[in-house]
Amino acid sequence: MAAKKSTAGAKSDKDKKTLTKIERLASAALKTVNGGGNPALEIRARTLSNVSFNEKKRIIELGDKTQSREFFNIAMARKFMQTFLIASKCKELIQGQKTISIRQMYYVSKHTLPGSTENTFEDQNESDPIIEDLEVGIDALREELHLFANKRGLVVGPLVVNDAGDEIDLARMGRGGWGIPSICEEDNLKFVRHKAEFVLSVEKQAVWHRLVEDRFWDKYKCILMTTEGQSARGARRFLQRVATELKLPVYVLVDNDPWGLYIYSVLKQGSINLAYESMRMAVPHVRFLGMSAFDYKKFDLKPNATIKLTKEDIARAEQMKAYPWFKEKKWQREIQAIVDNGFKMEVDALLTKNISFITEQYIPKKLRDKDFLQ
Amino acid sequence: MAAKKSTAGAKSDKDKKTLTKIERLASAALKTVNGGGNPALEIRARTLSNVSFNEKKRIIELGDKTQSREFFNIAMARKFMQTFLIASKCKELIQGQKTISIRQMYYVSKHTLPGSTENTFEDQNESDPIIEDLEVGIDALREELHLFANKRGLVVGPLVVNDAGDEIDLARMGRGGWGIPSICEEDNLKFVRHKAEFVLSVEKQAVWHRLVEDRFWDKYKCILMTTEGQSARGARRFLQRVATELKLPVYVLVDNDPWGLYIYSVLKQGSINLAYESMRMAVPHVRFLGMSAFDYKKFDLKPNATIKLTKEDIARAEQMKAYPWFKEKKWQREIQAIVDNGFKMEVDALLTKNISFITEQYIPKKLRDKDFLQ
Repeated sequence: MAAKKSTAGAKSDKDKKTLTKIERLASAALKTVNGGGNPALEIRARTLSNVSFNEKKRIIELGDKTQSREFFNIAMARKFMQTFLIASKCKELIQGQKTISIRQMYYVSKHTLPGSTENTFEDQNESDPIIEDLEVGIDALREELHLFANKRGLVVGPLVVNDAGDEIDLARMGRGGWGIPSICEEDNLKFVRHKAEFVLSVEKQAVWHRLVEDRFWDKYKCILMTTEGQSARGARRFLQRVATELKLPVYVLVDNDPWGLYIYSVLKQGSINLAYESMRMAVPHVRFLGMSAFDYKKFDLKPNATIKLTKEDIARAEQMKAYPWFKEKKWQREIQAIVDNGFKMEVDALLTKNISFITEQYIPKKLRDKDFLQ
Repeated sequence: MAAKKSTAGAKSDKDKKTLTKIERLASAALKTVNGGGNPALEIRARTLSNVSFNEKKRIIELGDKTQSREFFNIAMARKFMQTFLIASKCKELIQGQKTISIRQMYYVSKHTLPGSTENTFEDQNESDPIIEDLEVGIDALREELHLFANKRGLVVGPLVVNDAGDEIDLARMGRGGWGIPSICEEDNLKFVRHKAEFVLSVEKQAVWHRLVEDRFWDKYKCILMTTEGQSARGARRFLQRVATELKLPVYVLVDNDPWGLYIYSVLKQGSINLAYESMRMAVPHVRFLGMSAFDYKKFDLKPNATIKLTKEDIARAEQMKAYPWFKEKKWQREIQAIVDNGFKMEVDALLTKNISFITEQYIPKKLRDKDFLQ
C-alpha cells in the first residue's frame, strides 16, 4: 500500500522519481526482514581509493566499490537506523513540498529513542555524512532530497529566469544582484529567455561589484556571477545548467594563487569530497581566463600588485601540479610560473593600473586574444 | 581653482557635500603650510574611553575628545601622508562616480615613494584605520567616500525599490532574494512603493529560506531580510532607511545565545568599534522578537532543541549584562535566563516541533501577544 501512496505529494516527475528511490530502499529492507534475513544497504564507498579522474569525461568520479551496511551488526546498526531515519524525513519533505537545510535536518531527525537515553544523532557531524550516504546509496542529489546547504553567490545579466513562479529579469537587478538559490533544479528554476553570449564567473564579490558598476555584462552580453569564494553547490549547479542548457562558453576569473586555481578546478571537474555528484555539478568546458602568473609581464603590473608567496602557497602549488587533471604541459607551466614568480596576485590588484582597467582592458584583451587555459 | 573644480564630477548633492569636506581638509592644511606652520588634523579619538551610550537617543556615540595628527612629527608624519593619500583617492572616486572595496582602496593607494624603498602602505591593516580616521575626521560615512565593505544580506517582500535606475519588485524574487547592496545611500537606492506593515530581520539564512518558502512575507505583509550572521554595513543602513523612511516597526529574530543578543544589539544601538556611525546605522526602535530563553517552556520545546552552554557562552552572557544598554530589569532577566537554563537554542531548533512551526505558530503568536523586548 505504502508503495502506491508514496508519490502522492510529489508535484514533479523528479520528485516522483526520488520518492520511488526512497521507497525502493525501504521495501527491499522490509522484504529481507520479512524473509528473516539481515537487511543491508550497499553504498558506494566515499573513500579516496574509490575516486578517480575520468580522462574522457574530464570529471572526478566515484568508482563502483561498495560498502555494506548491515542492520544486525553492532558496528553498523546505528548508522543503518540513521540512514532510514533521514530517508523517512526526506520523504516527508518531498511529500510536503518543503526544503530544509542540512542543519535543520539534524534538528528534525534528532530525538531520544523511546525507553532509552540514546539520541538518534549527537550532533550535525553525525547527520551530514548520513545524508551523503543516502545521496550515493539511492543516487539522488541532496537537492533532490529537498535538502540544501547554505547558499552563496550572486548573478546579473541579460537572462530572464522563472524561479518558484516569479519571472525575474537579471538585467534589472540594480547593484544588488539576484541571490543564486541553494537549490537550482529544473522543478523550481527555469531559464525563460536570454541574450547572453557567454558566462563570466568571478571568485570575489568586490570584483563582481566593480564589473557590475561598470556594466560590463551589458556591454559584453554576459551572465556575470560571483561565487563569493569557493563555490557553493547552488552556484555550481546554476552554472552547469546555464552552460549546458543555454550552450554558453564559461570563463572563470580567480586570484592568481593555488587556491584560486583550485576554485576553478572544482567548477571544472568537481571535487574529491563530492565526487559522486560531479555529473550534476561539474562543467568540464569552463575556461580559466585568469589571473595567470604571466599576466604580470603581459599587463605591465608593478610590485604593488603582488603578495609574497608563503610556504603554504608553495606546498599547495606542488600539490596542484600532482593532480591528474593538471598534468598537461600548459597547466604545469602555469602552476610552475606562480612558484617561479615568488608572488601571488589578487584580481583586485588590477586596480593598481586604474580603477576600471579590469573592465575596459584586462578582460576584453583576454577574450579578444583567446588568452585562456582549458 | 581646485576648490571650484572639485565638485565637478559629483552628480548628487551628497557627493558635492563630501567633495567639499575633502576640499576643506586639504585647503586648511595647505593654508597652514603656506603660512609656514605645521599642518595638523584634528580627529575625534576612536578609543573606548571616548565612546559612551547616549541614554536619551539610545545609541552608542563617539565623544568629542580629539587626537591631533601633525605633519612635522616623526610619529605622525606617515599617517598624515596616508590620510591625504586616501582622501585624494576618494576624491577621484567621487568625481569618477565609481565605488571600490576597502581592499581595492589598499591596492589603489599602495605604491613605493619615488626615490625611496618606502611603501605608502605595507598592508590593508594599515589602510583600513586610515579610512576610519578620514570618516571621523571629515564626518563622512565610508559609503559617502565611495568605499564599501563586502556586502551580505538578502531581502524579499512587498516593496518596490529603484536601485541604480532599475525598478526592482522585491515581491517577485523567487527563492533567491535580492542581494542588499553594500552602499544603500539615497543617491543609488530609492524606495518606490510598498505594502509592508513591518520588517522582520532574521540572523540565519536557512531560517529566512524557510520563511520565504512558506511565503510568510506575503501572508503577513512584511519586508523579510536576513543579515546572514552579524550584519554588514549595507544591511544595517538598508534596515535603518526602511525603518525610518517607511515608518515601519522592525522585529529581529536571532538565536537564543549571547551572540544572537549581540547581533540584535548592534542593529539597535550600534557597536563600540563603529560608534561614530551609529547615527546613520543604528535603529533604536528595533524589537527583539526572539528567540527568548523563556520560549523553551512557552512553546513546549524538548531537550533536542537545546545545546549546552560553553564557558565562553556564560562569560559572554555576563559581559552582556554589564552593557549599559542592557541594564534594564527586563534585559537582565532575559540574559540571566540563558545562564539559568544552562543551554542555548538556535532558531532552527523550532523545526523539532514541525517544519513550518516557525512560520505558522511561533512568529504569529509572538506578534499577536506582543511578546517582544525593546
